[in-house]
Amino acid sequence: MRELTLIGIGTGNPDHVTFEAAKAIAAADTILIPRKGDKKSDLADLRHQIIAKVAPDSAPKIIEFDIPARRANGDYLEAVDLWHDAIAQGWKAAAQDAPCVALLVWGDPSLYDSTLRIATRLDPMPDIKVVAGITTLQALTAAHAIPVNDIGAPFVVTTGRQLRDHGWPKGADSAIFMLDGHCAFQTLPLEDFDIWWGAYLGMENQVIRSGPLQEVCADILATRAAARAAHGWCMDAYLLRKRR
Amino acid sequence: MRELTLIGIGTGNPDHVTFEAAKAIAAADTILIPRKGDKKSDLADLRHQIIAKVAPDSAPKIIEFDIPARRANGDYLEAVDLWHDAIAQGWKAAAQDAPCVALLVWGDPSLYDSTLRIATRLDPMPDIKVVAGITTLQALTAAHAIPVNDIGAPFVVTTGRQLRDHGWPKGADSAIFMLDGHCAFQTLPLEDFDIWWGAYLGMENQVIRSGPLQEVCADILATRAAARAAHGWCMDAYLLRKRR
Ligand SMILES: C[S@@+](CC[C@H](N)C(=O)[O-])C[C@H]1O[C@@H](n2cnc3c(N)ncnc32)[C@H](O)[C@@H]1O
Ligand SMILES: C[S@@+](CC[C@H](N)C(=O)[O-])C[C@H]1O[C@@H](n2cnc3c(N)ncnc32)[C@H](O)[C@@H]1O
Repeated sequence: MRELTLIGIGTGNPDHVTFEAAKAIAAADTILIPRKGDKKSDLADLRHQIIAKVAPDSAPKIIEFDIPARRANGDYLEAVDLWHDAIAQGWKAAAQDAPCVALLVWGDPSLYDSTLRIATRLDPMPDIKVVAGITTLQALTAAHAIPVNDIGAPFVVTTGRQLRDHGWPKGADSAIFMLDGHCAFQTLPLEDFDIWWGAYLGMENQVIRSGPLQEVCADILATRAAARAAHGWCMDAYLLRKRR
Repeated sequence: MRELTLIGIGTGNPDHVTFEAAKAIAAADTILIPRKGDKKSDLADLRHQIIAKVAPDSAPKIIEFDIPARRANGDYLEAVDLWHDAIAQGWKAAAQDAPCVALLVWGDPSLYDSTLRIATRLDPMPDIKVVAGITTLQALTAAHAIPVNDIGAPFVVTTGRQLRDHGWPKGADSAIFMLDGHCAFQTLPLEDFDIWWGAYLGMENQVIRSGPLQEVCADILATRAAARAAHGWCMDAYLLRKRR
């Protein structure tokens, strides 16, 4: 493997793909597609669909590989470390001797995604290229047609786990939360915040809610639970802003 | 004006445009293109180039309009307020009676951009749609092939002015800075940070630097000054991370 390109494909809408990503897909010899198990198989299917659409003629070789399971007990960061090594080995085995390999990364490769970190474990390390993709942040703010920041003001991007374990981020007025399977916004003083929430952003099943957290909290919890039951999985994210 | 679509076009690379943006451009009746003055005219030119590329057949009507000047003295937020009203009036006059109008927004419309706020001043307010675009954040991290966050950790997005006026953002380990004409990173204790800096990201003239802030600070200042002198303008951004 001489060159490894990590291609951001956006958050589930095939039209989130950029011309740059389309060119990179068409230029790859081999594209590796991870399989995480049945429940999320629509995400692998989306990758096939995108490749077929943007590279109908060049037909890069597509190789699926199974992502190994992560150790569930013990130290979290150590478990992640071992897991990343195992995935890197999996890529190597799957890619065989292809010189120019590509991976299609959900959203953008820079944001809460381990593909870049795994790539640096390859030995010898290939030349790593990144193609930018639409992230959950833009998918969320576009769906609501809102700015993410107040004029000239900072904002924080963080996770549901951080909110649960450490509370509202210090000094922030606006914050975006991702990777939250437990709706950690419930743990806040509801009357202090407005929320803009969205699930399956950019996808067919997109659903959004917004308003004073106090008024819409229960509806979001119920909507999320129903959607998760219907589809078997749910990816969601939200922006919270302190009320004045 | 019945419908106004704000289309994110990425940070200067015509290939940052998504298929969704291309479709929205082709579907518009009229596209408004702002002119800020000669120095930045390449940015208006890029918009023309993108439209010609993605909508060669549909040929939407392109109308250029001059952005009025912002009052330079007095209260900053008040000056911005008056300025936004004047721009909204300018759009209305330029768009005449076109029903479906589009504006091509640099990067993504949600991020440090006033187009969305100006749009809400239109009276009567049209139906506002947003098409997500690649932002400076992704252009910066893609150029350096780095993640923006540490594993599961938060990060802050903010401006050069905030750094100059309020110092390093409270509680943050990683922060991205935009809108900084004065290289505010100089004001930090240099030995405490690593920097990933980039100018003209995604564009022909892209230039990047990274390393311990102490070691690369002088080089970045000189590189930025030289580039600005050569091109007449410079857009840059950077990620800073606390060193362990
Ligand atoms: C492992 S992170 C990957 C983020 C991705 N790299 C990006 O740039 O957005 C997965 C998290 O992203 C968010 N996410 C991704 N796609 C989403 C979508 N279509 N709708 C809502 N949230 C989404 C959810 O918070 C989910 O837990
Ligand atoms: C008014 S803000 C617009 C941001 C834009 N909406 C986005 O999504 O990135 C302009 C700032 O974005 C950053 N920026 C925009 N394009 C850039 C580029 N090609 N290279 C480096 N920085 C850029 C600079 O910090 C600049 O001061």
